[in-house]
Amino acid sequence: MFYARVIGSLWATRKDDHLTGKKLLILQPLTFGGKPSGQPIIAVDTIGAGVGEQVVYVTSSEAVIPMNVPMAPVDASVVGITDRIDLGR
Amino acid sequence: MFYARVIGSLWATRKDDHLTGKKLLILQPLTFGGKPSGQPIIAVDTIGAGVGEQVVYVTSSEAVIPMNVPMAPVDASVVGITDRIDLGR
Amino acid sequence: MFYARVIGSLWATRKDDHLTGKKLLILQPLTFGGKPSGQPIIAVDTIGAGVGEQVVYVTSSEAVIPMNVPMAPVDASVVGITDRIDLGR
Amino acid sequence: MFYARVIGSLWATRKDDHLTGKKLLILQPLTFGGKPSGQPIIAVDTIGAGVGEQVVYVTSSEAVIPMNVPMAPVDASVVGITDRIDLGR
Amino acid sequence: MFYARVIGSLWATRKDDHLTGKKLLILQPLTFGGKPSGQPIIAVDTIGAGVGEQVVYVTSSEAVIPMNVPMAPVDASVVGITDRIDLGR
Repeated sequence: MFYARVIGSLWATRKDDHLTGKKLLILQPLTFGGKPSGQPIIAVDTIGAGVGEQVVYVTSSEAVIPMNVPMAPVDASVVGITDRIDLGR
Repeated sequence: MFYARVIGSLWATRKDDHLTGKKLLILQPLTFGGKPSGQPIIAVDTIGAGVGEQVVYVTSSEAVIPMNVPMAPVDASVVGITDRIDLGR
Repeated sequence: MFYARVIGSLWATRKDDHLTGKKLLILQPLTFGGKPSGQPIIAVDTIGAGVGEQVVYVTSSEAVIPMNVPMAPVDASVVGITDRIDLGR
Repeated sequence: MFYARVIGSLWATRKDDHLTGKKLLILQPLTFGGKPSGQPIIAVDTIGAGVGEQVVYVTSSEAVIPMNVPMAPVDASVVGITDRIDLGR
Repeated sequence: MFYARVIGSLWATRKDDHLTGKKLLILQPLTFGGKPSGQPIIAVDTIGAGVGEQVVYVTSSEAVIPMNVPMAPVDASVVGITDRIDLGR
């Protein structure tokens, strides 16, 4: 899983039916020191993350699980909103 | 999921049977500022995206889902055509 | 999916049983301008691609599908031989 | 699988239900010479690894298996604590 | 699939139950010219590869297949020992 900041959202009217009603967030991956690391990606949000929040996201086939549907064309999902990071302890 | 511009298409007469009749698009991944980012890839299109349009595509095993078949040798699919991107809101 | 040129083949006598009789090709990934891009990989061929041909290959779990067996330890397969690429149209 | 050092942990109160009660570790991937290699990632721990320990972690869909649940939105898991590495033998 | 040289092995006493009795090899990915390419990884070996041998390994979900168990937390497996590479033929 990876650490990121929500930096925006994306709207698509014409899309695959499995994505209807899903919120698409733009995530900037971060180092654990809070600096941008690599290119932003698009993830489905099912836990209500907002712009500016630090989140944990999951990639690959497991990304569809938080959606509670048998399948969906999704490869990245927000799975948690970060409260605290402890380094070196 | 990733953001890209459709920059072309690819034809293959001799191909795996599961790909018969599928449209193969060439996608240039983009930054959310609209600049090329990394190498173009090949994706299946099931929603009718055209050259020049900005799309969202999905990778990995989930890419086969928009095709509505039990399985297909596909690892990237266009799943939406982008209407609007909001950054920082 | 990705675009590549077949640049060779690889033989392994001692191998996993699921690979018995499979042809292993060495593929050089290409830009759509036809230049080498990144390191060559090994892919299974089920459509009869030959050295020098430009092909489309699929990666991840979907690579096993062209083999028409329930499962096989394969993560890259040739799925098409390229006839034509149209950029910008 | 990959080699890493546990460098910290991450807490998320608001998270996907499948992650309830799971311990999230921050792992710094290492070379086999013990030097940091690439960016840290977040992994689920089911074997009780602690900060400072050298571990083996698995990625992709297989990461869910150590959790002993049918599915979970996880793409990286600690699967072993390293006792010894032999190079060149 | 990828080409690599076996450069060592790794022992972990405390580990996920699915890995009990499995041999973990350290593989250095190679170019087809035989030069190191990128960082070494850890793979399960089921065909008896030894240090110094050139092997083919598979990644992602398919890596579990040579183990002949329904599932295992493994994302890389040795699937063949290379006898010969032909480039350009």
